[in-house]
Amino acid sequence: MKVQNQIGIKEYRSGGFVGKYQKLIREVVIPYQYSVLNDKAQDTEKSHVIQNFVNAGRALRGEDTADGFYGMVFQDSDLAKWLEAVAYSLSLSPDLELENTADELIDIIAAAQDTDGYLNTYYTIKDREKRWTNLLEGHELYCSGHMMEAACAYFDATGKDALLKVMLKNAEHIYDHFIVKGNDGCPGHPEVELALLKMYRATGNKHCLELAKHFIDRRGCDPNYFREEAAKRNWHVWNADSSDVDYMQAGKPVREQTDAVGHAVRAVYLYTAMADLASLTEDESLLAACRKLWESITTKRMYLTGGIGSTVHGEAFSVDYDLPGDTAYAETCASIGLMLFASRMLENEADGKYADVMERAFYNTVLAGMQLDGKRFFYVNPLEVVPGISGVSPTHRHDLPVRPKWYACACCPPNVARLISSFGVYAYGENKDTVFCHLFADGQVSFQNGMKLTCKTDYPYDLHITYQVEKGGRIAIRIPDYSKTWTLCVNGKEADATPEKGYVYLNAADGDTITLALDDTPYFVYASSRVPHLTGKTALCRGPLVYCFEGVDNDGDVLSLSLKDGETPVVGSYDENLLGGSVTLTVSAARTEDTKSLYTASRPGTKACSAVAVPYYTWGNRGENQMRVWMDEAK
Amino acid sequence: MKVQNQIGIKEYRSGGFVGKYQKLIREVVIPYQYSVLNDKAQDTEKSHVIQNFVNAGRALRGEDTADGFYGMVFQDSDLAKWLEAVAYSLSLSPDLELENTADELIDIIAAAQDTDGYLNTYYTIKDREKRWTNLLEGHELYCSGHMMEAACAYFDATGKDALLKVMLKNAEHIYDHFIVKGNDGCPGHPEVELALLKMYRATGNKHCLELAKHFIDRRGCDPNYFREEAAKRNWHVWNADSSDVDYMQAGKPVREQTDAVGHAVRAVYLYTAMADLASLTEDESLLAACRKLWESITTKRMYLTGGIGSTVHGEAFSVDYDLPGDTAYAETCASIGLMLFASRMLENEADGKYADVMERAFYNTVLAGMQLDGKRFFYVNPLEVVPGISGVSPTHRHDLPVRPKWYACACCPPNVARLISSFGVYAYGENKDTVFCHLFADGQVSFQNGMKLTCKTDYPYDLHITYQVEKGGRIAIRIPDYSKTWTLCVNGKEADATPEKGYVYLNAADGDTITLALDDTPYFVYASSRVPHLTGKTALCRGPLVYCFEGVDNDGDVLSLSLKDGETPVVGSYDENLLGGSVTLTVSAARTEDTKSLYTASRPGTKACSAVAVPYYTWGNRGENQMRVWMDEAK
Repeated sequence: MKVQNQIGIKEYRSGGFVGKYQKLIREVVIPYQYSVLNDKAQDTEKSHVIQNFVNAGRALRGEDTADGFYGMVFQDSDLAKWLEAVAYSLSLSPDLELENTADELIDIIAAAQDTDGYLNTYYTIKDREKRWTNLLEGHELYCSGHMMEAACAYFDATGKDALLKVMLKNAEHIYDHFIVKGNDGCPGHPEVELALLKMYRATGNKHCLELAKHFIDRRGCDPNYFREEAAKRNWHVWNADSSDVDYMQAGKPVREQTDAVGHAVRAVYLYTAMADLASLTEDESLLAACRKLWESITTKRMYLTGGIGSTVHGEAFSVDYDLPGDTAYAETCASIGLMLFASRMLENEADGKYADVMERAFYNTVLAGMQLDGKRFFYVNPLEVVPGISGVSPTHRHDLPVRPKWYACACCPPNVARLISSFGVYAYGENKDTVFCHLFADGQVSFQNGMKLTCKTDYPYDLHITYQVEKGGRIAIRIPDYSKTWTLCVNGKEADATPEKGYVYLNAADGDTITLALDDTPYFVYASSRVPHLTGKTALCRGPLVYCFEGVDNDGDVLSLSLKDGETPVVGSYDENLLGGSVTLTVSAARTEDTKSLYTASRPGTKACSAVAVPYYTWGNRGENQMRVWMDEAK
Repeated sequence: MKVQNQIGIKEYRSGGFVGKYQKLIREVVIPYQYSVLNDKAQDTEKSHVIQNFVNAGRALRGEDTADGFYGMVFQDSDLAKWLEAVAYSLSLSPDLELENTADELIDIIAAAQDTDGYLNTYYTIKDREKRWTNLLEGHELYCSGHMMEAACAYFDATGKDALLKVMLKNAEHIYDHFIVKGNDGCPGHPEVELALLKMYRATGNKHCLELAKHFIDRRGCDPNYFREEAAKRNWHVWNADSSDVDYMQAGKPVREQTDAVGHAVRAVYLYTAMADLASLTEDESLLAACRKLWESITTKRMYLTGGIGSTVHGEAFSVDYDLPGDTAYAETCASIGLMLFASRMLENEADGKYADVMERAFYNTVLAGMQLDGKRFFYVNPLEVVPGISGVSPTHRHDLPVRPKWYACACCPPNVARLISSFGVYAYGENKDTVFCHLFADGQVSFQNGMKLTCKTDYPYDLHITYQVEKGGRIAIRIPDYSKTWTLCVNGKEADATPEKGYVYLNAADGDTITLALDDTPYFVYASSRVPHLTGKTALCRGPLVYCFEGVDNDGDVLSLSLKDGETPVVGSYDENLLGGSVTLTVSAARTEDTKSLYTASRPGTKACSAVAVPYYTWGNRGENQMRVWMDEAK
C-alpha cells in the first residue's frame, strides 16, 4: 500500500516540542549559519561559500575572481542545504526579509551557472577543463543534487521558480552529458539520484526520472566505473582509493546488494533514491534490495540512538554487530539519511518499523547533533564520552566531548536545520484513501484529500496525543513499537482497533476527537549478546527517547555506576528550565568504590545510590563531562 | 640494594615448563626461523636478511650485489635477534652444528662491515651517502644495538669474540661519529643505548658507557634533534612525523619524563637503558624518572596480561586508563621490553613489584606471542577476539584471531626466541651478599658467590617450589603479589620470615631444602572503574596465569557468558594433552539467551551453566574462535 509522504501534505504548522526547535532554526540557526556562509561568524571555520558563487559568476563574465575558491570541493552544498532549510522555514512561517535574502542569493547562484547549464563554483573558478572528469571525488553531482532539493523546496514554499529553472537547466545539462552524449559514470557520492526524483515529482520532467534511474542502474556494474575513471585520470582531490568500491556502494549492482557497506551517508542517500525509484516505477527487485539493506542496517549495524556508520575509517559502516559506543562515528548526516530512507520505505509500504527507526534517529542522534542553543554542532555522536580519553586518545580523536561551532567539512549543521524544518514531511503521509500519522508533534496539517488534523501533544515528554479531525476520512495512526500497551479513544470512547503492521486504521468523522495514550513507563533496553561491546549492559529509555547518564548529574563519575534494572525508575516532573525543557529519570543504582590499584583481586565494594539520567539528545550541553548510554547492570 | 641480574649467573639450566619452551626454541623455533631468514620457509613472508649481509659484503668488495637489499630498513636486526637466541640456547645446551652455523653467519656479518667499522646492509647496499642522515627512521643504531646484544650473548655462551670484536669496532665507529666528530643526534628507535651498556658490562669499554649516556642525555633536549634533522633531510623511509616527538620519547629530556608515551617498544627499550645507566652510574635523578615511568605504565597503562601500548596508531601508549581489549595493540615485543625494564629496575632496587610485572608479561603476553608448536607468531595480543569482527573491522584489522607464520616486519618472533632462551637472566640475580630468586622455574643455577640452587617445580601450574641448596649463603625468594597466603619451610620446618618489599630473606646452609607453597586458589580480578572498558567485568586468574574463555570450550559462544564470581572455580587436573600441558578452570556461570532482535526491552533470560577457561597464553591454538579475558559478572 503506497503512501505519499513527500507531496501528501498541503500545509503543515507545528507547535510543541518540534515547533520550538523549528523556531530555534528560524530565529537562531538560519541567521547564525547565514553569518557563517558569509564569513561573518567569529572564531569559527571559514565557509566562503556565498563568495564562491559570486566569484564563479565573475569567472563566467571574464572578470577577476577576486579571492577565488575556498573550501571543500563540495562547499556549494552548504549553501544549498541552508537554502532548503530556509524554504521549509518559510513554508512554516512567512518572513519577507528572509525571502528577499534568499531571492538575492538565488540571483547570485543563477549568475554562477554557465550558459550550458553547468553549475559548480569549484570547477568554474578553478579549472573548467576538469568538469566531469572526477566523479569519484569531484562532488559536482552531489552539489547539483542538494541545489535541486533546495529548488524544489523553495518552489513549494514560495511558488517562485527561479532556482527551479536554474536546476532544471542544470539537470538537462547533466542529461545531455551522461545520456545524450553517452559519457559513462555515476556519482561518487550519491545524492543527485534522490534529488532528481524530487525534481521529477515537482515538475514531471521525465529526463529527471530517466537520469536518476540511469545513475542507480549503472552503479556497481562491470566494468567498475570508478576504477576505469581512476586509471584514466591524472589529478585527484584527496586521493580516494578507487579500488575500495564498497566505500561508494559500487561493489555490486544495486539490486544485488544485501549488506549496508561503505560511507554511511553515501549509503543511505543511495538507498533513499533506490526506495523512491522503486515506489515511482513499481520496481519489485529494487524494493527487495531496499528491504534487505534496511534489515542489514536496523538489525545488525545501528546504534540504539539511530546512529549508523560505526567506524571513523571512511565514516563508514563496519561489520555486523560492531557497535562500539566510545569510538562510534555515527555521523549526524547519516542519521538524517536514515530518516530519508525510512520515509521513502514508508511510501512503498506502510509498516511502522520504518517510522520507529525514523523516530529513533530523529529524537536521539539528529537532535543531539545540535547544541540546545542552536549554535554548536556534533558531526560525530558517540554513546560514551570520558574526558581525558574522548577526543584525545588516537582511537577516540573524533569523539569530542563538547560541540564545536562549525566544521571545515560543514555538512551536518545545515543538514540538521533542513531536517527539523521539514519535520512535517516525515510526520505525515497520504495515499488515495488514507492519511497517515507516522510521527507525533503538536500542530496542524492539511491533506490533499481535504482532511485536516489538529494535533495537541507534549510529545516526546508527555505521550498523550489528541487529534481534532476536520472533514473526516480514513486515518492511520502509528502505534510505536516501544509502546506495548496503549489506549485509543474516539470522542472519549475506547476504539476497537487492532494495529496492522504498526498502524491502527480508523474511519474518522468531521469533528471527531481522537486520543492516543502511549505507554510512558521508562524501560530498560538490552542488546543482543552478538554485540561484544554491549554484553552485561542496559540502557534506559522512555517513549522514543534514549536516556544517558552525565557526570554533572552524578557526582562527576558515571563509569562506576551500575543500574538496578529490576526497579522502576522515577520520572521527574517536566522542568522547562532543564536542558531547554526536559524530564529526568532517576534510577536505583550502585556505585562501585574506587580501587586503589589498576587491578585488584578483591571485589570492590558498592554503595546503593541514585543515578540521574537525561535524554541523550541533550548531552554535552553543560560543559565537558562523562556521558554513558549503556550502563552496567547492578549485581 | 643493588642486584645484578645480567651478570649474576654463572650457569643456568632449566627443566619443567620453561625448559620445555627452551627445548621448543632450540628444536623448532631456531631451525624454523633459520629457514625463514634464508628464504627457505614455505608460504610466508620473505626475509632475505642473510642474503642482505652476503650482498653487503659483495658491495664492499665492489662486486655485483646480485638481488640487492630486500625488506625493512631494520631487516638486519632479525638476524641479530636470531643469533642472540642461538647464543642463549647454546649456553643452555651445547650444539656444535648450530654453533658452526652461527660462526659461518658471523663471518658473513664480519665481511659486511666497512673498513671504518660501519655495519648496516641497507645503506651499504643501497646508498652509502645516506649513512647517519636519518636517525629518525633509519634504524642504523637500532640494528647495531641488536647485533651488539648478540655479540655479548655469543661471547658469553661460547667464549668466541669474533662478533664482539666486530661490534666493538662498530661501537668505536659510532663513538667517532657522534662524540669525536661531534655530529649531533640520538636514536630514532632506542636500543643501542641498552646494548652499549651490555657491551660495557661485557668488555669494560668506557666509550660504550659514554656513548650510551650521551644518547640518553641528548634525547628530548632543545633544539629537538629530530625536527632539526627532518628540516635538513631530503629523503625519508616512510615519512615519519618528526613533529610527533612523543612518538620517540623526545618531547622532554629523559629526567623530566613522567608519562610513558609514544611507540611502546621504543619507550621500554629506552627506559631499560635509563634504568641500567642509573644503576651503573648511581644516577638518582635518572632512577627517579624511571620510577615515575614505571608507575605510569603499571598503574595506568598496562593490560592485565602485561601487554602495553594499547593503540595501533603508532603502536603506542595511549592515555591513562584507555585499555580496550578488542582493539588492543599490546605488541609482543613491548611486553618483552617491559620485562627488560623490570629486570633493570630490580637491579636498582629489590622490590617484588618489578618481578610481579615481569612474570605477568612473561606468562601471558610474551608466551601468547608464539603458537604452542613454535611455528606461528602474534605481533598483536588482544584480550578479546570475535571472528567476523577481529581482523576484519577497520578498527580491529590488526587484531588477528589466529597467528600468522611470519611478518614482513618480523621483530616479534626472534624476540620471543631470545627472551625465552635467556629466562635465567630474569629469574635470578645476585648482589654482594645475597642471591635472588625473582621467578620460579625448574632447573639449576650457579651464582658467582659459589652458591648453587636446584629448583624443582611444576610452576606455573603447581605452585609448590623446592630449592635444594649447595654451598649456603643468604637467599632472597620472591613472594608474588598474587599469593596473599603462603608457607615457607626450611628442611620441613616453617620459617619465620616476613617479606620485605616482596622478598623473604633467609640464611641457607649447604644441603638445606627450602620449600615454598604459594596460594594456588583461582582468583577473580577487577579493574579500577577509571578504565571505561572494564566496568562490570571480571577476569579469572590462577597464580601468574591470566585465564581466558574460548569458544571451543564453551559451545562456540563466550560473549553471552557471565561468571558467578562469588563461587570458587574448579581447578582441573593437569592434562599433558591439553594445549601443550595445561590446567583448565571451570566456573559457575550464566548464559544469556539470544535475543531475536538487536535491541529488546525484555530482559533476556539466562540459564545456569559452567564455563571453562584456559590460560591466556594458549589461546588461538585451536582454530579461529571467540576469546575473551574480561567477562561479565553474572547478576
